[in-house]
Amino acid sequence: MGIITFLTDFGFKNNYVSQMKAVALNITNAKIVDICHHVTPQNVSEGAFLLKTAARYFPKGTVHVGVVDPGVGTERKGIVVVTPKHVFVGPDNGLFIPAAREQGSFDVYEIRNPRFMLNKISNTFHGRDIFTPVAAYILEGIPFTEIGPSTKDYIDLNFEKKRVIDDKKIEGEIIHIDSFGNIVTNLTEDDIKNFFSYGSEISVFLGGKRRKICFSKSYDYVDRNDFLATIGSSGFFEISINQGNAAEELSVKAGDHIKIIH
Amino acid sequence: MGIITFLTDFGFKNNYVSQMKAVALNITNAKIVDICHHVTPQNVSEGAFLLKTAARYFPKGTVHVGVVDPGVGTERKGIVVVTPKHVFVGPDNGLFIPAAREQGSFDVYEIRNPRFMLNKISNTFHGRDIFTPVAAYILEGIPFTEIGPSTKDYIDLNFEKKRVIDDKKIEGEIIHIDSFGNIVTNLTEDDIKNFFSYGSEISVFLGGKRRKICFSKSYDYVDRNDFLATIGSSGFFEISINQGNAAEELSVKAGDHIKIIH
Amino acid sequence: MGIITFLTDFGFKNNYVSQMKAVALNITNAKIVDICHHVTPQNVSEGAFLLKTAARYFPKGTVHVGVVDPGVGTERKGIVVVTPKHVFVGPDNGLFIPAAREQGSFDVYEIRNPRFMLNKISNTFHGRDIFTPVAAYILEGIPFTEIGPSTKDYIDLNFEKKRVIDDKKIEGEIIHIDSFGNIVTNLTEDDIKNFFSYGSEISVFLGGKRRKICFSKSYDYVDRNDFLATIGSSGFFEISINQGNAAEELSVKAGDHIKIIH
Repeated sequence: MGIITFLTDFGFKNNYVSQMKAVALNITNAKIVDICHHVTPQNVSEGAFLLKTAARYFPKGTVHVGVVDPGVGTERKGIVVVTPKHVFVGPDNGLFIPAAREQGSFDVYEIRNPRFMLNKISNTFHGRDIFTPVAAYILEGIPFTEIGPSTKDYIDLNFEKKRVIDDKKIEGEIIHIDSFGNIVTNLTEDDIKNFFSYGSEISVFLGGKRRKICFSKSYDYVDRNDFLATIGSSGFFEISINQGNAAEELSVKAGDHIKIIH
Repeated sequence: MGIITFLTDFGFKNNYVSQMKAVALNITNAKIVDICHHVTPQNVSEGAFLLKTAARYFPKGTVHVGVVDPGVGTERKGIVVVTPKHVFVGPDNGLFIPAAREQGSFDVYEIRNPRFMLNKISNTFHGRDIFTPVAAYILEGIPFTEIGPSTKDYIDLNFEKKRVIDDKKIEGEIIHIDSFGNIVTNLTEDDIKNFFSYGSEISVFLGGKRRKICFSKSYDYVDRNDFLATIGSSGFFEISINQGNAAEELSVKAGDHIKIIH
Repeated sequence: MGIITFLTDFGFKNNYVSQMKAVALNITNAKIVDICHHVTPQNVSEGAFLLKTAARYFPKGTVHVGVVDPGVGTERKGIVVVTPKHVFVGPDNGLFIPAAREQGSFDVYEIRNPRFMLNKISNTFHGRDIFTPVAAYILEGIPFTEIGPSTKDYIDLNFEKKRVIDDKKIEGEIIHIDSFGNIVTNLTEDDIKNFFSYGSEISVFLGGKRRKICFSKSYDYVDRNDFLATIGSSGFFEISINQGNAAEELSVKAGDHIKIIH
């Protein structure tokens, strides 16, 4: 049985996600899994991060619908991104590229064929009217070439590129704040481990202040309410407070800059 | 395979929704879909709006459980509403009538037969103890007449009626604020398009102030942080801010009055 | 078909729950049900309460994954708790014991066999890397003895024990605040009904103040915005405001003390 996933910035105070699921269930009997619906509104980079770090765990053949779509109703294209493992369906704004790149080479198709869309297309909800039915038909086995032409002209996005590493410092940005207030950066395990080992102290500039933070294997290695730095479960460098909320304490948000002196 | 949906005002900081799903899974193997669990507590009109605008996308045969139920534990009846397309199960307070009316003629049955309820009925959670098992048995094919007698005595609700349109003004009310802060009114596409076309300026009284707002095809037709009015994806007139939160900015909530001068 | 449930304190502003579901779907085709992901962070007692009061409704054979895990990455064990009805998989911190005890006698196994874990084990997310794959393999029928040795050495937890009942007073604690602001205590139906009957007035010390509250069969038995005490749908004593938020009004939280004079 197939799997269809949904990632959006819709939140839950509405019925939009259920409208997409209903549309899917008219076409396919696939299993439905929510990846996240609390992407910071219109934050395509954060959406790309959450999709990439979840998609890697899904079985081969999974089809992902992603709707973080500030350009809905304008001329931005809808696309289907096909990797050897998964398929991604949604707006052409970079949302799928980090996940697809991790899965190897990929092909991009532009969505054109109205046969795989709802009869009435709204101006503000292509997730329901175009992307979900296309994804559901893909799960039912329609060939990609029937959806629209293959294209090389798509928006790229690489949130990992926004970092600078030299012999004095490591610079990057906050890519995501999770519900615990853990501050997830775009710095990878390798970036950090080339310079620091667990137990060492790291000098971090974040939220306008310099702070010395212990680089720990897990939360409980420091006292309750103390800051720590760690490699999070998705392989990225994170700043946390043991049993506390680091993002609130530092008043930082996705997109903010981080600098580490070594 | 059948589909059972759930719409409640329970929120997620509890396990109530999972208790209903567990009860359902003792009786049926149907697919479970959440419509919304963040209806403003006890706001039956908003629940009816969210159910109506989601139900229209679900396949024939879907059974909806709706629990926005300020009268639980009092003498209000439990009902089953049967349309040519779907079945709705829950309290008799109008919650299902707008959705049912959209699907054509409908019949109402009063829930009486204890055979389709849990053995122990709590005073505060009929969603779990009565409505969900009744819905699950309906998916398994029991005849409606075994649940209880057909009745013409049920509470009506028509949130679209609360609007006045004359040659000077259009008046209505806010029916729902979504997670983006989009202000959804009970004014329909036709109400507005008889007087205005995309690109024209609309004079709106809302939250105690008059405001001139551009009537736009989609969000991105105005500058970032500018107000716009549009026809939302469910076919109702909405006030939004491009990449902002209109409801917060205007301090308005579901139930508030809106007036448009033309 | 089997059922796998998830209970965590992860919230929804991340993709962690979806990562666990993805891992499960690589191993099993079981139905997935969310119990609650909004346990107060690291509050094991509240998690145990929510799991116990939901688990009782699930069909025989259900496997529950519970991840409220402040000790992740330290030496705390992972365990499998097996009752005649269900299986529970997660950290050894007491989270599963109240639910298991309600289901009768139970056996505990320590998770040791790496064959049922992901290849790479992170320091901070054993829910994904260890507990979920173990649970999925259990649904696929592996014998418990292959997971690890049976043990009598596990952390007990009994949130119902934290109450004192004598001829003058009933003392207990708040175990959970739900999304309506209902204050759920660890006092049971029997504790209260031995001293009070519906309609009587109860003298409650809560949030530093004494308050006389009507013990009511349901919310609507008092006026809108009035306090009431009731037996909640899970069989525990609750303090509520009819159509209001009692926990906000009293500024109380899970763990706070409650005293009733009789």
